[in-house]
Amino acid sequence: MDAAALPIARVAADVAPRAALSIYPEPYASLMRGRVKRQLGDAFGLKNFGVNLTRLEPGAMSALRHAHAKQDEFVYILEGTATLVTDEGRTPLRPGMCAGFPAGTGNAHHLTNESDQDVVYLEIGDRTPGDSAVWPDDDLQVIEIDGKRRFAHLDGRPY
Amino acid sequence: MDAAALPIARVAADVAPRAALSIYPEPYASLMRGRVKRQLGDAFGLKNFGVNLTRLEPGAMSALRHAHAKQDEFVYILEGTATLVTDEGRTPLRPGMCAGFPAGTGNAHHLTNESDQDVVYLEIGDRTPGDSAVWPDDDLQVIEIDGKRRFAHLDGRPY
Repeated sequence: MDAAALPIARVAADVAPRAALSIYPEPYASLMRGRVKRQLGDAFGLKNFGVNLTRLEPGAMSALRHAHAKQDEFVYILEGTATLVTDEGRTPLRPGMCAGFPAGTGNAHHLTNESDQDVVYLEIGDRTPGDSAVWPDDDLQVIEIDGKRRFAHLDGRPY
Repeated sequence: MDAAALPIARVAADVAPRAALSIYPEPYASLMRGRVKRQLGDAFGLKNFGVNLTRLEPGAMSALRHAHAKQDEFVYILEGTATLVTDEGRTPLRPGMCAGFPAGTGNAHHLTNESDQDVVYLEIGDRTPGDSAVWPDDDLQVIEIDGKRRFAHLDGRPY
């Protein structure tokens, strides 16, 4: 990004939503319907971490439940009540509450919106190279095929 | 931090404030009075980036105006109106507004509270090693003395 073209500040809700629904293969990509991400960090040319303003409609989820090997993640709830699901169970997260997910613990997490109101939150994740992730509830893994990282079933068949 | 001792979630405002007023030498440390930082990322054992919930009383500032060489920074305003000062001048930041400060541009920034109400915001910064910073408005630099990084005057005298 041309430094001269960088904004000084933005109204977060005015940043255009990300066009792509999800990087997951089907049938998982469709499960991300009702999730809208505004990539605030990218809007300022940040490289080391991402900050998204994410809205979950009723019934939507933040991601499949997952754990990162090298990248930390953090969420801060701005509106509505999310349900945080971790290995410990289900925890309601209300506005002003936050949760952090340090890399390498193996404790998988995601947010779901089980309410009848939208949930809006900030999510932060760094971009440490060489990361990997696990999805303990789903038939999903990332494997290397011909030197490229691909989503695959747990039995090794690529999606 | 013992992984078993990590919290699942926190009310951000309930995290204890950081005890230290500032890492700056005097007379700059005292300029940080009226600034309260709650280290939310650290509360969850995050290592790759920090997330602080920071409150500025009227007249307080986020930091001396500075620019990082390698670390990105980002702020999101939750309450009150801050004044963002950059090389371009002064920009009011209201709740729901955000700003990002990519590493290496040399464009120095800080927030001041020139209102009569507290300002509350989230600030995020990564911990990329080998960072350095410049403070264009102040008699401050970091130099290496006997292999240790020290704050010094611009003429080289250590604080």
